[in-house]
Amino acid sequence: MHSIKQYQDFISTYIDSERSEKEPKNLYEPIHYIIGLGGKRMRPVLTLMVAEVFNADYKEALPAALAVEVFHNFSLVHDDIMDAAPLRRGNETVHEKWNLNTGILSGDAMLIMAYQYFEKYEPIVFRDLARLFSKTAIEVCEGQQWDVDFENRDDVTIPEYLKMIEYKTAVLVAAAMKMGAIIAGTTDENCCLIYEFGINLGLAFQLQDDYLDAFGDPETFGKQVGGDIIENKKTYLYLKASGFSTPDQAEQLTHLYSIQPEDNEEKINSVKAIFNESGASAATLEAIKEYTYKSFEILEKMQISEEKKLLLKTFGEDLMGRKV
Amino acid sequence: MHSIKQYQDFISTYIDSERSEKEPKNLYEPIHYIIGLGGKRMRPVLTLMVAEVFNADYKEALPAALAVEVFHNFSLVHDDIMDAAPLRRGNETVHEKWNLNTGILSGDAMLIMAYQYFEKYEPIVFRDLARLFSKTAIEVCEGQQWDVDFENRDDVTIPEYLKMIEYKTAVLVAAAMKMGAIIAGTTDENCCLIYEFGINLGLAFQLQDDYLDAFGDPETFGKQVGGDIIENKKTYLYLKASGFSTPDQAEQLTHLYSIQPEDNEEKINSVKAIFNESGASAATLEAIKEYTYKSFEILEKMQISEEKKLLLKTFGEDLMGRKV
Repeated sequence: MHSIKQYQDFISTYIDSERSEKEPKNLYEPIHYIIGLGGKRMRPVLTLMVAEVFNADYKEALPAALAVEVFHNFSLVHDDIMDAAPLRRGNETVHEKWNLNTGILSGDAMLIMAYQYFEKYEPIVFRDLARLFSKTAIEVCEGQQWDVDFENRDDVTIPEYLKMIEYKTAVLVAAAMKMGAIIAGTTDENCCLIYEFGINLGLAFQLQDDYLDAFGDPETFGKQVGGDIIENKKTYLYLKASGFSTPDQAEQLTHLYSIQPEDNEEKINSVKAIFNESGASAATLEAIKEYTYKSFEILEKMQISEEKKLLLKTFGEDLMGRKV
Repeated sequence: MHSIKQYQDFISTYIDSERSEKEPKNLYEPIHYIIGLGGKRMRPVLTLMVAEVFNADYKEALPAALAVEVFHNFSLVHDDIMDAAPLRRGNETVHEKWNLNTGILSGDAMLIMAYQYFEKYEPIVFRDLARLFSKTAIEVCEGQQWDVDFENRDDVTIPEYLKMIEYKTAVLVAAAMKMGAIIAGTTDENCCLIYEFGINLGLAFQLQDDYLDAFGDPETFGKQVGGDIIENKKTYLYLKASGFSTPDQAEQLTHLYSIQPEDNEEKINSVKAIFNESGASAATLEAIKEYTYKSFEILEKMQISEEKKLLLKTFGEDLMGRKV
């Protein structure tokens, strides 16, 4: 087994080795650009790690890991267009640096390239990986559509919200892990369990993201704290607060989520106060704990050594402590 | 073997049988809409026909045929965004009827769904189909990018133009045919030959499209005659005319391709006169004939009955006579 840092390096080296100067430049340069922006590469790291957990060489899992990373970048490029986002990882988004058409087309090419990385595997593994990948990719699209739909709805329920973040975020984390298991050729049971582990960890991660967006440390969170509140995003915190709050609080919250003031500080502080007073903050922290705990319970059922269970658990804990 | 009309009906019936009322509606309704607009379904017809040419039951080829059709529709939806096109087959385009985000996202979902249709085949066939599909899809993206790039270039050569239309149009026709051959399990040689047949027929078809766009019968062509000239599109006719024309003609052509008059009739007639006088029209008709002839030569090398060669040849002739 290797460290997170080592896995990240393996992926960077593999990305560099796979990079070729293909034409037309206007299609491939934006692809190299967005993938070159990096990020923590958490998803492909998980693919390599899980492959080794199930006794394969991480090298065997590199093409699938890259497929996951390239798909993730495809979804960022197209999502950034849909959100009209100017920045990604502190740099210009593809549609800003080039234009809308380049964003669409280079995104499309990345989605196709992701499938091509699976061609390095023999037919049965190829089929299993591509099938899991397609199912996951469709779910990510469905999650994105739910997210868009929810913006114009006032009656989103907690189960609907959880389904949305499961599709938009958790399924790709889970699939990244399951791919490592498929490549290692472990039992179907282990494949299912690692997927469920990933879903629960992914849900915990996304709920924590919702929480940190309001209550995180501006120094370490990476994104603008309060961003969801500024954009009136109906996150888990908001939905819980709506459900828990007194009629007065509810009215105030609805009002605050209808305004877009010049100075957001007061709005952010008022909303955070309602999140705290209504019990929404506590409920969110509780939900994060529950999903994390559930993921660890699933881990216990896996047919792997205690040492490897501990390794996955530590990764989960580091992730939730945002040390990775 | 069946008639074109019968193959079209098989495809329509199969599309209906595969349609399910999936959620979220805002993702799947645009997909049903664009696929429901129909068209001649030439590409999936070719998949079924070639499967039968190589002695398979057309039914076995239905999932691959649908993959080709869904991919083709994905490319229409995203291309229509890039071209800011208001109409497709006489109806509103997806991004017009819904919005930009819906166009991007439902297009993405169609690209993924196309891969999922291959899951109905056993692993080796699945791998071969998906691999051919990915290669083709990437080439279609590259062709689209070349097309966009050419708009801002004044030095596009004939070989570059031919490469662009090969990627943008011919490779999908060729791949649709080769998929039928793969499913039928014919020899690698036949698979290669049918692909080459498709490339040449596809090139002839696209060059004829360029020709008919200027010189077609408004009653039967289906698109606005003169559309390419109005949009200053550097088609084969234009590039040949630029190469063949006298300095006077060349200057006049450059001028005509820089203006966007209120009334286009005079511009269209002047450009068509240069196309004719320079010999570009004759050269284009000659190129169409050559590619068609080359496709028929390739047909002769195939290990199939004379009857089946005749059938493919008749399809090619009907296509070039625009009877299908």
